[in-house]
Amino acid sequence: MQLVATTDAVIEGVHFDLRRFSPEDVGWKALAVNLSDLAAAGARPRWFLCALGIPASSRVVQIAQRISRGMSSLARKSRCALIGGNVTSAAEWSVTITALGEARRPLSRAGARPGDALVVIGSLGDAAAGLRSYPSPVAARAQRRPVPRVREGLLVAPFASAAIDVSDGFLQDLGHICAESSVGAVVECSSLPLGKAARRLPDGMELALGGGEDYALLLAVPKRNLPRLSRKLRFAEVGRVVRGRGIQLTELGSPRPLPRRSGFDHLRK
Amino acid sequence: MQLVATTDAVIEGVHFDLRRFSPEDVGWKALAVNLSDLAAAGARPRWFLCALGIPASSRVVQIAQRISRGMSSLARKSRCALIGGNVTSAAEWSVTITALGEARRPLSRAGARPGDALVVIGSLGDAAAGLRSYPSPVAARAQRRPVPRVREGLLVAPFASAAIDVSDGFLQDLGHICAESSVGAVVECSSLPLGKAARRLPDGMELALGGGEDYALLLAVPKRNLPRLSRKLRFAEVGRVVRGRGIQLTELGSPRPLPRRSGFDHLRK
Repeated sequence: MQLVATTDAVIEGVHFDLRRFSPEDVGWKALAVNLSDLAAAGARPRWFLCALGIPASSRVVQIAQRISRGMSSLARKSRCALIGGNVTSAAEWSVTITALGEARRPLSRAGARPGDALVVIGSLGDAAAGLRSYPSPVAARAQRRPVPRVREGLLVAPFASAAIDVSDGFLQDLGHICAESSVGAVVECSSLPLGKAARRLPDGMELALGGGEDYALLLAVPKRNLPRLSRKLRFAEVGRVVRGRGIQLTELGSPRPLPRRSGFDHLRK
Repeated sequence: MQLVATTDAVIEGVHFDLRRFSPEDVGWKALAVNLSDLAAAGARPRWFLCALGIPASSRVVQIAQRISRGMSSLARKSRCALIGGNVTSAAEWSVTITALGEARRPLSRAGARPGDALVVIGSLGDAAAGLRSYPSPVAARAQRRPVPRVREGLLVAPFASAAIDVSDGFLQDLGHICAESSVGAVVECSSLPLGKAARRLPDGMELALGGGEDYALLLAVPKRNLPRLSRKLRFAEVGRVVRGRGIQLTELGSPRPLPRRSGFDHLRK
C-alpha cells in the first residue's frame, strides 16, 4: 500500500461564518474536505492531524469542544483516527487538517487520456446555492455538511485514469485535470448532475459549473471501463477528454460560452 | 520503521511580525518547529505538507515566494520533501505544516521513569531574548532561525526513555513529560544551559525556564545510559525524574520558587 497525504483548511470569514455554521458544522466540514481529497485519490482514510487557530473570545472552550464534536462524528463514520494536533491563538477561527490514507495505486489529476469519458459522482451546485440568502434545507446542508465520497472513491479507483474532487468549482477542477494531464475537455452541460436545490434556481447551471464546494468526484475513465463501472455505482457521464488544451462547453450539442468566472480563486477577491 | 506525523503552525501577530521577521525567516521557522517535533521523537524527516493562509495585500506573491525560499533552504538541508499543500485567503499570514518522518522506535513524552536523568541538548533562553527590543544578533537569530536538532534526536533516541522539544518553555514542556509519564521532576537551575544572549541578561534564568521557542531537546535518560550518550554528543544534565507529581527547582541545592508563569499558553493572554 502507498501512503497518501493531503492538507486543507477552513477559515472563518472565508469558508464559514459562525452565524450560518454551527461549530459542529465547522468541525465536520474541515475533516470532510480532507477526506474528499483522499476519496479523489482512491485512498482509504486512516489518520488525521488537526491544527486549530483560536481567536480571543469568552466562549472559545465551548466552541472548540463543539467543533471537535462535529469532527469526531465524521471521523468515527469514516474510521479515521485523530493522531495529533496543535492549538494556537489567531485572529479568526481556523481548522487546518492533514489527512493520511492508504491506496494500492493512488489516483491523481495527471493520467487522463484523450478519448476517456468524464464522469461525475455526486451532484453539483447545491453547496453554492447554500450560500444564498434563505437557502433551502437541502442547499444549506450541502454547504455545511458535505459528505466526502470515500466509498465511491475506493470503488472507482481501479477503473479511472485521473480524478479530482469538485472543491473550487467544476470548471476550475476540470481545468486542473486538463493542465496536469496535458489534455483538453468537452463538456455537455445538459448532462451535468445538478443537485436538487440548484435545479430549482434560474442560474443553477452557473452554480454547477463554477460554484464549488460540492465535493462530488470528477473522474476521467477509459471508455472500455464504463460498463463495469456502471455495475458498481451510479454516475453521470458529462463529457470526454480530447487532445489539445482548454475546455469547451456544449448544450444539447451546440457550443455554449464559458462563464466569465470558472470557480473560486483564493488570491482574487 | 514507524511513521511519525506532527503538525505545527506559525501565525502573524502571534509567532512572528513581518517588521522583525523576513518572509524567509517565517518559512524557515515554520518548517523548523515541525522538524524539531520529529527530532524529539527521534524520527528522520522525510516529507511535509504546507497550508498557507494569505491576507489581502499587494505584495502577496512576492512574500509567498520569499517564505517558500526560506522553507526550501531548510527542507534541502534536512532532506525533507514538500509533497502537498493548500493556499487560502485569511486575515493574516499563517503557515501550518505537517511533517512526516520515520523512526524505528519513536520517542514520546510518556516513558520517563523515576531515577532517570533530565538532559538538555542545545541552549535555553536566547529565543526569548530575541523578542526584546534591540536584541543581540545571537538572540535575534535564535528567535528567527531556530535550528531543529534532528541529528541529535536520531543519535539520542536509542538511549532516552522520553523526550520533548522546548517550544513553549522549559518548565511547561517538562510539565508535559511529567504529566504524560506520571512522574515528578527536580531541576537544578545552575545546570541549565543558558544561551550566550540569555547569560548576559539579568533575568536570563527566567527566560531559560519559561521563555520558550528554543527548540532544544529535553530528554529523560536512564542513568546507566549517560556514559554511552556522552561519547555521542554534548549535553547538559539538569536534574532528575522523581516519584510523585510536580516540578521542584533548586539553585545550588537550595529550593528555589517556581516562576509565576512557566511558559507560553496560547489560550491565556
